[in-house]
Amino acid sequence: MRKQELARLIDHTALGPAVSAGRVEELCREAIRYGFAAVCIPPTHVPLAARLLREQGPVVCTVVGFPHGHHTPEVKAFEARTVGSEGAREVDMVINVAALKEGDYARVSADVRAVREALEKVAERPVLKVILECALLDDREKTAGAILAQAAGADFVKTSTGFASGGATVEDVALLRRTVAAHVGVKAAGGIGDYETAARMVEAGANRLGASRSVAIVGGAPD
Amino acid sequence: MRKQELARLIDHTALGPAVSAGRVEELCREAIRYGFAAVCIPPTHVPLAARLLREQGPVVCTVVGFPHGHHTPEVKAFEARTVGSEGAREVDMVINVAALKEGDYARVSADVRAVREALEKVAERPVLKVILECALLDDREKTAGAILAQAAGADFVKTSTGFASGGATVEDVALLRRTVAAHVGVKAAGGIGDYETAARMVEAGANRLGASRSVAIVGGAPD
Repeated sequence: MRKQELARLIDHTALGPAVSAGRVEELCREAIRYGFAAVCIPPTHVPLAARLLREQGPVVCTVVGFPHGHHTPEVKAFEARTVGSEGAREVDMVINVAALKEGDYARVSADVRAVREALEKVAERPVLKVILECALLDDREKTAGAILAQAAGADFVKTSTGFASGGATVEDVALLRRTVAAHVGVKAAGGIGDYETAARMVEAGANRLGASRSVAIVGGAPD
Repeated sequence: MRKQELARLIDHTALGPAVSAGRVEELCREAIRYGFAAVCIPPTHVPLAARLLREQGPVVCTVVGFPHGHHTPEVKAFEARTVGSEGAREVDMVINVAALKEGDYARVSADVRAVREALEKVAERPVLKVILECALLDDREKTAGAILAQAAGADFVKTSTGFASGGATVEDVALLRRTVAAHVGVKAAGGIGDYETAARMVEAGANRLGASRSVAIVGGAPD
């Protein structure tokens, strides 16, 4: 895959408690320069990123209920509406992992639906990516989570937050890809650090990649 | 310190994406049996814990903006009001770590104040503990964070979430204790796994401890 083509699949990401405004500025500059799909940044920095990316190619992506997914549906919905109104064009939410593992599918659904409905109230409805946190799930739970996410209105299912014990694997990407419908995307995230890994994820079915080492990844791709 | 006396200082804790309802039930039973101060559990489980602890000694503690502290003040305030109305009697919030590290003290203050004001709207105003996440801060930042937290209405300052690279240290507890006024508590959390460590934290000035291995900690104390 060529550099430009690969860059268009990448959410250039900096998450964690200590991400500074300066780091977000740098991320936005790099996103414009390399043509990444989005910058993915903490909710507190959405207004800054929205200002820096106004009328540029890359959009602002942020996270909701992140990274533990343990916030109530009302809180996730409120957060989604807030970041949407501040300029986030894409929202990556974490599911209620505990509910999924307990087989409480109604609760998992209601949680995703609450966020989807909140996003529908935003002027240009942001893209919704639903993070399953695969490192904490067995294959049955991953499958159920992906199906429930699609049913509740996910535009993408996403493997990982990057803050659990493990990130994206080729096996998980393939499982998610064969589980959801063709119109639902698969985002691989967590631990993707070089071109070879990125290419394997795309080959397995990912059509979006979350990465912090995006510049190095694209650097390894053929011109 | 005797078992009973120590137990009364402990927030018996289970946090993380996969904490089940069953684990919360177990935690509540243990809290009643040992006389812990509180159970500290994910926001989604507050109604369950509030039901199980009704008219018992231990109270329900939960977390807000946890563990990254990167949610906007409005979202943290909304979450605080929600969990307060559902029965949380204590709320451990994470500060805007990035803002503190950038020296944006007004933003750190406004964030804590938003949560404090939200809690004041709850019938019996819940106790507010403010988590600084000391592992990510230098001493100057810890001092500033503690001062700003007290000024904005914290009842306690707390060392750590338990999800950063490090947890409570004796040095940090002592620093926080000498920084805040006597009426403000200091909660040590993260990595406290045995009686000896717990006792050292109390000696350094902690008057609340967050721990998941609380039963073992109390087990190691003299009768």
